[in-house]
Amino acid sequence: MTAPRWLDEREGRMWRAYGEMQRRFATAIDRQLVRDAGLSVADYELLVPLSESPEQQIRARDLRQMLDWDRSRLAHQVRRMEGRGLVTRAECPGDARGIIIQLTAAGRRAIESAAPGHVATVRRLFVDLLSEEEIATFTAISERVLDRLAQEETEGTPTAVAGRRGTAGQ
Amino acid sequence: MTAPRWLDEREGRMWRAYGEMQRRFATAIDRQLVRDAGLSVADYELLVPLSESPEQQIRARDLRQMLDWDRSRLAHQVRRMEGRGLVTRAECPGDARGIIIQLTAAGRRAIESAAPGHVATVRRLFVDLLSEEEIATFTAISERVLDRLAQEETEGTPTAVAGRRGTAGQ
Repeated sequence: MTAPRWLDEREGRMWRAYGEMQRRFATAIDRQLVRDAGLSVADYELLVPLSESPEQQIRARDLRQMLDWDRSRLAHQVRRMEGRGLVTRAECPGDARGIIIQLTAAGRRAIESAAPGHVATVRRLFVDLLSEEEIATFTAISERVLDRLAQEETEGTPTAVAGRRGTAGQ
Repeated sequence: MTAPRWLDEREGRMWRAYGEMQRRFATAIDRQLVRDAGLSVADYELLVPLSESPEQQIRARDLRQMLDWDRSRLAHQVRRMEGRGLVTRAECPGDARGIIIQLTAAGRRAIESAAPGHVATVRRLFVDLLSEEEIATFTAISERVLDRLAQEETEGTPTAVAGRRGTAGQ
């Protein structure tokens, strides 16, 4: 194994700034939602795709993929939101083991009343601080990282290929 | 209240790309640490400042502030890591209610053996994908957002000032 290439001064500075920014920004976004709308970020993340889908409903397995949540996290989150009347669960027609998550009228009202304050916070703390050019750069970087992640999901990581999966692949 | 300024197409694209990148990247970092070193990201985040401090120990309240964790999260995390022999707790000399978190020799070995694989993953999925100029831009954006967050923590958010705290301030 070759010697690790530690981050140099400017790489380390970026890495620390990104980590701290991401953490503190997420906390601020969550606080605003809880305080002004009584919703957590997880509630909001689940309400957005439901409210944007034409029939206000999405199959659980599609929702899991959209949110990159595992089965137990989605089940737990849906149970809590069902208890508060924001969503309901129904069986998929023609698929006995499939579940559909459906937005309720109360869920619809919750996301509609939360959205203006949320977007104002996102603007104030992030989007409106960036120039046109910075928005383009930030988008390009994020999409490049996502492409790299998708590539590794398909091909396996270098470590996984060499160390665990052998020649059999996935 | 004025009409919300929704994100336009390119702002929305950045916001979605950032959210997804941040989430999937964090998952990938966590998976690599768990798989190759038996540590969670939370374990790692707590071990780093301890291993970098000259005496391998930090007061709990300083650690909370460095990590932006609340009291119960730190207490919970430290209890679990104490159970695995990675850290110990001790009383602060001269401050009966103060607690010091101390890295153990096993904790030191854990971070030392985890670090090379972690930094390689951070490079492969993020840092090495950026040009010099992009690193400078990404750092500047992250630090600008942090400054804005710090400013709001000091002055209060517009909503909090107008709606909740009145003229009494904090």
